[in-house]
Amino acid sequence: MKVSIIGTTGYGGGELLRILHHHPVYNIQSIHTTREEIAINEEYPHLSGIIEQKLEKIDPYKIAKESDLVFLATPSRVSGKLAEAFSETDIQIVDLSGDLRLTDPDEYRIWYKDEPVKEELLQTAVYGLSEWNRAKIASARIVANPGCYPTAALLGLAPLVKEELIDPGSIIIDAKSGASGAGRGGSKSINFSEVNENLKIYKVNEHQHIPEIEQQLKKWSPKVKQITFSTHLLPITRGIMATMYVQLLEEKSTEEILELYRETYGDSPFIRIKPFGRYPSIKEVSGSNFCDIGLHADQRTGRVTIVSVIDNLMKGAAGQAVQNANIMNGIDEKAGLGFVPLYP
Amino acid sequence: MKVSIIGTTGYGGGELLRILHHHPVYNIQSIHTTREEIAINEEYPHLSGIIEQKLEKIDPYKIAKESDLVFLATPSRVSGKLAEAFSETDIQIVDLSGDLRLTDPDEYRIWYKDEPVKEELLQTAVYGLSEWNRAKIASARIVANPGCYPTAALLGLAPLVKEELIDPGSIIIDAKSGASGAGRGGSKSINFSEVNENLKIYKVNEHQHIPEIEQQLKKWSPKVKQITFSTHLLPITRGIMATMYVQLLEEKSTEEILELYRETYGDSPFIRIKPFGRYPSIKEVSGSNFCDIGLHADQRTGRVTIVSVIDNLMKGAAGQAVQNANIMNGIDEKAGLGFVPLYP
Amino acid sequence: MKVSIIGTTGYGGGELLRILHHHPVYNIQSIHTTREEIAINEEYPHLSGIIEQKLEKIDPYKIAKESDLVFLATPSRVSGKLAEAFSETDIQIVDLSGDLRLTDPDEYRIWYKDEPVKEELLQTAVYGLSEWNRAKIASARIVANPGCYPTAALLGLAPLVKEELIDPGSIIIDAKSGASGAGRGGSKSINFSEVNENLKIYKVNEHQHIPEIEQQLKKWSPKVKQITFSTHLLPITRGIMATMYVQLLEEKSTEEILELYRETYGDSPFIRIKPFGRYPSIKEVSGSNFCDIGLHADQRTGRVTIVSVIDNLMKGAAGQAVQNANIMNGIDEKAGLGFVPLYP
Amino acid sequence: MKVSIIGTTGYGGGELLRILHHHPVYNIQSIHTTREEIAINEEYPHLSGIIEQKLEKIDPYKIAKESDLVFLATPSRVSGKLAEAFSETDIQIVDLSGDLRLTDPDEYRIWYKDEPVKEELLQTAVYGLSEWNRAKIASARIVANPGCYPTAALLGLAPLVKEELIDPGSIIIDAKSGASGAGRGGSKSINFSEVNENLKIYKVNEHQHIPEIEQQLKKWSPKVKQITFSTHLLPITRGIMATMYVQLLEEKSTEEILELYRETYGDSPFIRIKPFGRYPSIKEVSGSNFCDIGLHADQRTGRVTIVSVIDNLMKGAAGQAVQNANIMNGIDEKAGLGFVPLYP
Repeated sequence: MKVSIIGTTGYGGGELLRILHHHPVYNIQSIHTTREEIAINEEYPHLSGIIEQKLEKIDPYKIAKESDLVFLATPSRVSGKLAEAFSETDIQIVDLSGDLRLTDPDEYRIWYKDEPVKEELLQTAVYGLSEWNRAKIASARIVANPGCYPTAALLGLAPLVKEELIDPGSIIIDAKSGASGAGRGGSKSINFSEVNENLKIYKVNEHQHIPEIEQQLKKWSPKVKQITFSTHLLPITRGIMATMYVQLLEEKSTEEILELYRETYGDSPFIRIKPFGRYPSIKEVSGSNFCDIGLHADQRTGRVTIVSVIDNLMKGAAGQAVQNANIMNGIDEKAGLGFVPLYP
Repeated sequence: MKVSIIGTTGYGGGELLRILHHHPVYNIQSIHTTREEIAINEEYPHLSGIIEQKLEKIDPYKIAKESDLVFLATPSRVSGKLAEAFSETDIQIVDLSGDLRLTDPDEYRIWYKDEPVKEELLQTAVYGLSEWNRAKIASARIVANPGCYPTAALLGLAPLVKEELIDPGSIIIDAKSGASGAGRGGSKSINFSEVNENLKIYKVNEHQHIPEIEQQLKKWSPKVKQITFSTHLLPITRGIMATMYVQLLEEKSTEEILELYRETYGDSPFIRIKPFGRYPSIKEVSGSNFCDIGLHADQRTGRVTIVSVIDNLMKGAAGQAVQNANIMNGIDEKAGLGFVPLYP
Repeated sequence: MKVSIIGTTGYGGGELLRILHHHPVYNIQSIHTTREEIAINEEYPHLSGIIEQKLEKIDPYKIAKESDLVFLATPSRVSGKLAEAFSETDIQIVDLSGDLRLTDPDEYRIWYKDEPVKEELLQTAVYGLSEWNRAKIASARIVANPGCYPTAALLGLAPLVKEELIDPGSIIIDAKSGASGAGRGGSKSINFSEVNENLKIYKVNEHQHIPEIEQQLKKWSPKVKQITFSTHLLPITRGIMATMYVQLLEEKSTEEILELYRETYGDSPFIRIKPFGRYPSIKEVSGSNFCDIGLHADQRTGRVTIVSVIDNLMKGAAGQAVQNANIMNGIDEKAGLGFVPLYP
Repeated sequence: MKVSIIGTTGYGGGELLRILHHHPVYNIQSIHTTREEIAINEEYPHLSGIIEQKLEKIDPYKIAKESDLVFLATPSRVSGKLAEAFSETDIQIVDLSGDLRLTDPDEYRIWYKDEPVKEELLQTAVYGLSEWNRAKIASARIVANPGCYPTAALLGLAPLVKEELIDPGSIIIDAKSGASGAGRGGSKSINFSEVNENLKIYKVNEHQHIPEIEQQLKKWSPKVKQITFSTHLLPITRGIMATMYVQLLEEKSTEEILELYRETYGDSPFIRIKPFGRYPSIKEVSGSNFCDIGLHADQRTGRVTIVSVIDNLMKGAAGQAVQNANIMNGIDEKAGLGFVPLYP
C-alpha cells in the first residue's frame, strides 16, 4: 500500500516517517510540506542515509491518485481545509489535528475559536481512539486521530466510566506534557531557557481538549458531567502523564478495579496495566506505542487515583495514527509498531 | 546572634549557609555533620573562598553553650533525637525534619512507621507555617519547620478553607517536586538517567505529608475531611508546584476569590498573588523565599483550581526556617531573605 | 548614583536588574526597551513585588540627563548605534554587546559582517576584562564589556600566555555554553525539544569571539598566533565551560603552574583557583560572579589542560558589567556582587 | 542462534534486550545477573509484556552448553573473570568491558590499577571496532567490544591518521558523554541534582580509555604519539560527542578531507559523513547505531576540527556488540540494527 504524509517537517510528521520506514505493509509514496521543496534530511538530518525523499508541494488530487492513504500531520485549520479537499477523492484519510474530532460544530467554534469544517465531514469522520472504536475505524474512510491528552485521559478513565462506578461529576484530570507537544516552531514560550528547570500550567479550564474528552466520556456514560482538566508543560521532550481523580459510588478495592482494567484491556496489545502498588512512568513508554496505566483506590477518601502515560508523539499522535490505519485496512493492529521503549 | 547548623552537607544545610552568609543579624558559629570533619568546601566546592569553616562533630551541650539558635537540617529520626537532646538546654531550635510536626504521636507511628519523640516535645514545638502562625512562633523556643509539600499546599488552600467556602471533603492536591527534595544521597531512584526525561508518581496516598496537611487544615476548619494527595518527581533540581482542586459550596467568581487571597496575604511579603488569568511557574521563584499563587474558578464545574509554587529548598525548607528564626527573635521577617528569583 | 538599563527585557537586562536591585550604591533610575511600554513584571513576572518600574522608550538625551551611567544590554548593531548617541553626552557607558570590543574596524567587518561604529569610539572604549584592565577601566567613560566566551577563555589562559610559557601557536579552546547565551527570542534552533538531550557544535572556526580573544592574547604576548576555537550548545540554561589546551615550551609541573595562577589572581576576589586534582563545574558558579579555574599539566604530552567556568549571564555579562561600573566609579569591585552560587 | 546476556540489569544489558528482541537471527536463550533471580520486568518495567524472561544466576558451563554466543555486559573485573571461564568452553564471547581490550598487560595495570586477565586471553581477543577490523572479527571467537569514547574518537580520527596527513603528536580529543555511561548505580556523583544544569570535567589525563585509543591509533600509524584526552559529564542521558583537533602536515581543504572520509567509509552503513558546513548533533543518532562525523579544516591555523557523535549505549556499547556478533557469524552487519534515530 502507498501512503503519503502532509506536514512532514513537524514532529508528528517526523515520527510518522520513523514508523513507516520499517512498516511491513505501507510504503511512503510521497511526503509534503507547505514550505520549500527540499530533501527531508535537510530539515531532519537524523534521517540522512535512511530516508532521502524530497519534500513536495501539496496537490491533493495528485496525492489521492498516487496514494491509498494520507496522513494529515498538519495543524488545526490547515488540516481541516485539506481534509475537505481529500474528502472529495477516495483516498483514506487519517487526520492528526483537532479539526475532525468534535461532532458538534458549535463546540468547535467555542473551544477552537474558529469555523469548523463542513458538517458532513464532521459526521463522516470516525473518532480514532483505537482500543474503543475498532469496529467503526475498520469501516471508516476518514479517521479523526485523537488528541494526545484525550488519548491518555480517556484510556485511563474508560473502564470506570463505562461501568458507571464513579460519581459522574467528580472527574478531575491533572495532565502534564513534554514540550514536543508544542511543536517545532520558534516562540519565546518554548525557548529552552524558559522551559528548562521549570513547570508551567497553561490554558487552565480552557484547553480545546476538554470538549473532546467530554464528548467521548458521554458516549460511554451519558451521565458524565463537565470535567476539570489542567495541563502543565514539563521540561522534557516526549511524554504525557495524566493523573486522574474520581469518586467511587461504592467501595471498591484497588485489586477489584485493577481486575476490571485487566479484563477490559485484555485484547489490547498496547495497553499495559500495572500490578498493585506500581505506577507508570513517562520514560517507560518513550518511543513506543504503549499506554501504561496504574491506579489506587484510597479507602480513606473513596477516591481512585488513576495514572496513565503515553509518548505524546506515538500513542498520542503518529503511533495511534498508524494503528488506526492498520485497523482501517484489516492489517494486524500492531504492524510496524513493535517499538521497545527507549530506556533510559 | 550566633547560630549553628547540623546536617550541613545536605541540600537544606547548604541552602542555610547560602542564606546565613549574608544575614544581617545571625553569625554562623559552627557547622556540623555526622560524617568526617572536613572543611565545608571539600564537600561543597561552590563555597570555596566564601565559607571556609570546618565541619565539626555534633556535641549538643557544647553547641547549646556557644550558640543562640540551632537549625536541624538532619533527616527524620536523626532530628528527633537531636531535638530531644537540645530541648534540655535553652538554645532555640528550628527543626527542618518531620519529627516535631505531628502533635498526635499515633499519626507519626502510622505515617512515619517509627516511634515519635517524647510527647512533651511534640506539644511544645510550634508548627512554623510562618504566615499563619506568627504569634506562636514569636514566643516559641522550638519550631517544627513545615514540610516542603505542606508549605506549598497549605498556603494555597488556606483562605478558602478558613472561610469555609468549599466542600470540606473535596480537597485534591496534585503536587510535583524537583529532585533536590530527595536529598544528596546516592540511590538508583535518583540516578540522573532514571529521573531525566521522565516523570514519576510516588507514594500514592501514602505520603507522610498527608497527616501534616490535614492537621493544619483541620485547625482552620474542623469540618475538613481526608484529602487526596499525590506527589510526582520532576526532572528539575529545585521547585514544587501544587495544583489543587476544590469544590465551591456556592458560586464565586475568580475575581472574588483572588480578592480574598490578596486581602488575606496583604501583610505577607513572601506571598505573591497572580492577577486574573495568570498562573505561577516554578522558575519564577527559584532561589527565593516567595510562594506564588494563582487560581481560577470554573463556572462550568463550580471547582476552583489553585496553583501554588515555591522553591522547595527555600520557602519549602531553609528559607522558611530562617523566616521562622527571624520571627522567633523579633527581627524583620524578611531579614536575610531578599533574594530576587534567579531567572532564567 | 543613578543608572539606566537599555535592553531590559533580554536575559542580560534581567540579570542587571537582579544585581542592581540590591546594589549599595546604584539606584535604578530608568529601564528601557525598544518594545512596548509595559511594567517590567509583565515581561518578567518573577520580579512582581520586587521591581515595579515601567519600561520606557529610549531617549538617549533624556537618559543622559537623568542618569550617571547607562548599561547597554542590547544586541550588536543596536548597541553600536546607541553608544554613538550616548558618546555625545557625558554619561558613563557600559556596553554588553560586541560592538565596541574590536579596535580594528576591519576585524569587525570580517567577523560581524557589518559596518562598525565610528573609529573614534572604538579607540575610546576600554576593554572591560576587569581583572586585567583595572587601571584603564578606572579612568574610562566608555567600557566595552567582554563577551561571555572571551571572559572564560582569557581568564583561563592569561597567566601562561603573559609569562610566555607556551607555544604561541598551540592554543585550542573547546567552549560549551548554556542556551541563555542565545537570548530570549523564539527560533527553532533554541526550541526546547531541539536543545534538550542534545549537544550541538556551532560556528566552527567562524565565531565572532575569535578576534576578540586573539586581540587580547596578543596584547599579553605579541607572539600569539591564530587560535582554534569551538563552541557547543549545552542543554542547560546558564553557564560556560572553556576547556583549553596549550603546549608548554618547557616542562612545568601542575603545582608550579597552579602557583603562578594563585599569585596572578591573588588580589582578584572573583577568581578561584582549584587545588591540585580538582576541576571546576558549571553549577558551582551558577548565579554568581565567580570564574573558577583548574588545570593539569600532562607529563606524557607536555600539554596543559585548563578548565575555566563562569555563569554566562553574570561574569560573562551583567556581573562583569557591574564590576566594571564599580571600578569606573572607584567603588569596591565586589559591591553588589556578593552572590553565593546557587547550588544545587 | 541462541544468545545469552550477562549483566542484563545494567544499561548496556537493557539495550541488548531492546536490540535482540527484534533481531532476525538471534534468540535470547537466557539472561543473567549476579543479583536476585527476578523477572526482568521487575527490574525494567518498560519491558513488561515484551520480555518476560526470568533473570538467572550465572553458570558459565550451563550457559556455554545452551547458547551459541554470550554478551558480557558486566563491569571491568567481573567481565574478565567471566571471560576466563567462558574461554574454556567453545561459546562465542562479546565482552563489553575494558578487560580484554589492551593487549599489553602492563598498560592494563597502569590505567585500570588492577591485574589483567591471563595474557593468552588478551592475545586471543580481537578488538571489535567493527568498521576497521571486519576480517579479524569475522574469524574471532572472542571479541573485545570497544569503549564508548574510543569508538567515537577512533572512527573520527581514522582516515587522517591512517593516511598520515597529520602531525602525529598533535591529537587532542575533547569528549563529552551523557550520564548513562556512568551506569545505573546510585552514587552522589550521578545524583540528578548534581548532574542536572551542570557540566563536569573528570579523569583529566587519566581516563582508562587513553591507552585503548593510543593502541589502535598506533596500529594505523606507528608514528602517533601520546594523545590528550578529556572527558566531560553532560546533563543528558544518552550520547557522546568527541570534538577533536589535529594539525595538518600540509594544507588540505575541508572538501578534500571530507572526500577522503566519504571514500573511507563508503561501505560502512553506520557511518554518516556530514556535508560541508554541517556538523553532527548528539540527538541525531539517539537510539541508533550511527556514528555521524563532520569536520572543518581551518585555513587560518592549519588545524582540522573533527566532530564525531554516537549513542553511547548503541554504537558505543550494545549496538556495536551486536554488529560484531553479526560479523562473527557471517550475518549482514546491519541485521537487527535498523533503528531510525529517535528525534526529537
